[in-house]
Amino acid sequence: MAVRIGRYTLKLDRPTSIIGYAAAGSRKEAKGPLGKFFDYIDEDSTFGEKTWEKAESTLQKCVINKAIKKAGVTPGDIDVLLAGDLLNQCIGSTYGARQMGIPYVGLYGACSTMAESLLLAALFTDCGLASRCVAATSSHFCSAERQFRFPLEYGGQRTPTAQWTVTGAGACVTALQSGAPYVREVTIGTIEDYGICDINNMGAAMAPAAYATLLHYFNDTGTRPEDFDLILTGDLGMIGTQLLHQLMDEAKLSITANHKDCGLLIYDRLEQDVHAGGSGCGCAASVLCAYILPQLQEGLLKDVLFLATGAMMSPTSVQQGESIPGIAHLLHLSHTDGKEDNIC
Amino acid sequence: MAVRIGRYTLKLDRPTSIIGYAAAGSRKEAKGPLGKFFDYIDEDSTFGEKTWEKAESTLQKCVINKAIKKAGVTPGDIDVLLAGDLLNQCIGSTYGARQMGIPYVGLYGACSTMAESLLLAALFTDCGLASRCVAATSSHFCSAERQFRFPLEYGGQRTPTAQWTVTGAGACVTALQSGAPYVREVTIGTIEDYGICDINNMGAAMAPAAYATLLHYFNDTGTRPEDFDLILTGDLGMIGTQLLHQLMDEAKLSITANHKDCGLLIYDRLEQDVHAGGSGCGCAASVLCAYILPQLQEGLLKDVLFLATGAMMSPTSVQQGESIPGIAHLLHLSHTDGKEDNIC
Repeated sequence: MAVRIGRYTLKLDRPTSIIGYAAAGSRKEAKGPLGKFFDYIDEDSTFGEKTWEKAESTLQKCVINKAIKKAGVTPGDIDVLLAGDLLNQCIGSTYGARQMGIPYVGLYGACSTMAESLLLAALFTDCGLASRCVAATSSHFCSAERQFRFPLEYGGQRTPTAQWTVTGAGACVTALQSGAPYVREVTIGTIEDYGICDINNMGAAMAPAAYATLLHYFNDTGTRPEDFDLILTGDLGMIGTQLLHQLMDEAKLSITANHKDCGLLIYDRLEQDVHAGGSGCGCAASVLCAYILPQLQEGLLKDVLFLATGAMMSPTSVQQGESIPGIAHLLHLSHTDGKEDNIC
Repeated sequence: MAVRIGRYTLKLDRPTSIIGYAAAGSRKEAKGPLGKFFDYIDEDSTFGEKTWEKAESTLQKCVINKAIKKAGVTPGDIDVLLAGDLLNQCIGSTYGARQMGIPYVGLYGACSTMAESLLLAALFTDCGLASRCVAATSSHFCSAERQFRFPLEYGGQRTPTAQWTVTGAGACVTALQSGAPYVREVTIGTIEDYGICDINNMGAAMAPAAYATLLHYFNDTGTRPEDFDLILTGDLGMIGTQLLHQLMDEAKLSITANHKDCGLLIYDRLEQDVHAGGSGCGCAASVLCAYILPQLQEGLLKDVLFLATGAMMSPTSVQQGESIPGIAHLLHLSHTDGKEDNIC
């Protein structure tokens, strides 16, 4: 049973495992350094649909079904589906879920959704509220671009701080059973706002949230950055990464040695012309499910802090002069269930 | 500890209580039959802000602070805040929560959010994941109208099936302690879609979800409609209510004797010109917190099934010819904790 070990952090005392996971993307993601690790690639990013929003919905449904299949179960074995996305009213998730008949918990965490959904799924299974849960999220460059920025046809010039929304999705199935990767602790994020107002500089808006959540986790658990093979943020990109390193250095908790950001892993930043890096719910989700979870399963990575960051503004709030609040949820993912740590 | 008693329903075995709650609204809600029960009324519905979106955010923050105060605790005593609203990217909730420093779980359940947030808050406290949680949601006529329908200045003619978005909010504080009202069971909704495409007939789109969730609850618990003083739906309005009665009659589980709908309680439908009734996240939330929870606390009501329904579409999905999926989450709220039921 999960127990609270601080104001922000819960420790999962039972072996809560990610028993299945899948990642999907489009041609651009396939051409990136991690392309070969994806479970499914759609060459033209329509996923066989006539609109970008329907394409995103199909993309998310695709990874959910693949993750369930890879877990060796059926949709009828899933007790709760926890999902969300960036689209207004989260239609990427709801339209995908409507044929599934699985009890559905709708989330909105912007680009933090993979961490938010996975930590809730892990808590549900750890507490016996569900035998198996699915956590899922997605983003699509074309649906996000026209909703948050400009019509695609406009061909607007992008600023150097802008990030490229990943056309991708990830899904995980959690269950109370043995087998890496395990979820060991989770930290629920707080909303942080340092007054950034530039909608083309999301990395800067989200870095303070990542900083706050890391501090909360290290403080609640008594650990330090060097206790982990990898500290993986979601989509801070180049600018947000620099700011997070600076904040952590000032707190005497440097993460430069073992930090990576999904937004800087998924594309070849210069070759693929993505400016400050990748972003979107699907960025952290697909990098986690395509590239990180397999390494945790095999033991190539032992202990990873995965924290996905979200910018909780809307175009309307930014137009009204508001700054951009950020949030970051964190999971400690491990190759081991932690029980052997007590032996010595 | 909550235990699963069927595919859809969880039974809370420990006395999970709603220890504080508050409702707020504007002048229109004050003039309705329940106006005198609200904790706070803002006369001009701006809540002192310059935009409708900021007004909604302030409204939601107001009920959260009032509920925390009425529970006799402080924001520092709250371990998790679970909230969401109808606005794109849920800015009604995120901008209100950014100064609070409370770990935040963002939800999107459209008008089902009061039930979704409250059932998760109850599960979190029942499982010991949090000592105290806050569940909250809001809606605002002016922010919703211009986002989902027309600019306010346009003065569009409303159809007879249209409902009036409530300017209102509700918040509940949950804790593991004695004192009515209690949360006894919860049923997580599934997404249901009967093919309704009319964005001005939300009641019809949501009725199938209410029907599915009621069937799941009665089936999982072995209860019947007559076991409850009141079955309270969120915002089906006149059309959705008629359809739900018809569906329940066909299933031989008639609820006509003890069913009420928050959308039909909150306004004087004819005098206040709201056509098919009230709607919006704030409808179920404010009626629950202003009118129902006090009666459960005092014992005037003993057992209530509260189910809030949400329409999970967006203007974009409807413009693309999609039908409207609905969801309904349910809580069994009671004056007693259920322990004395075992005595006889």
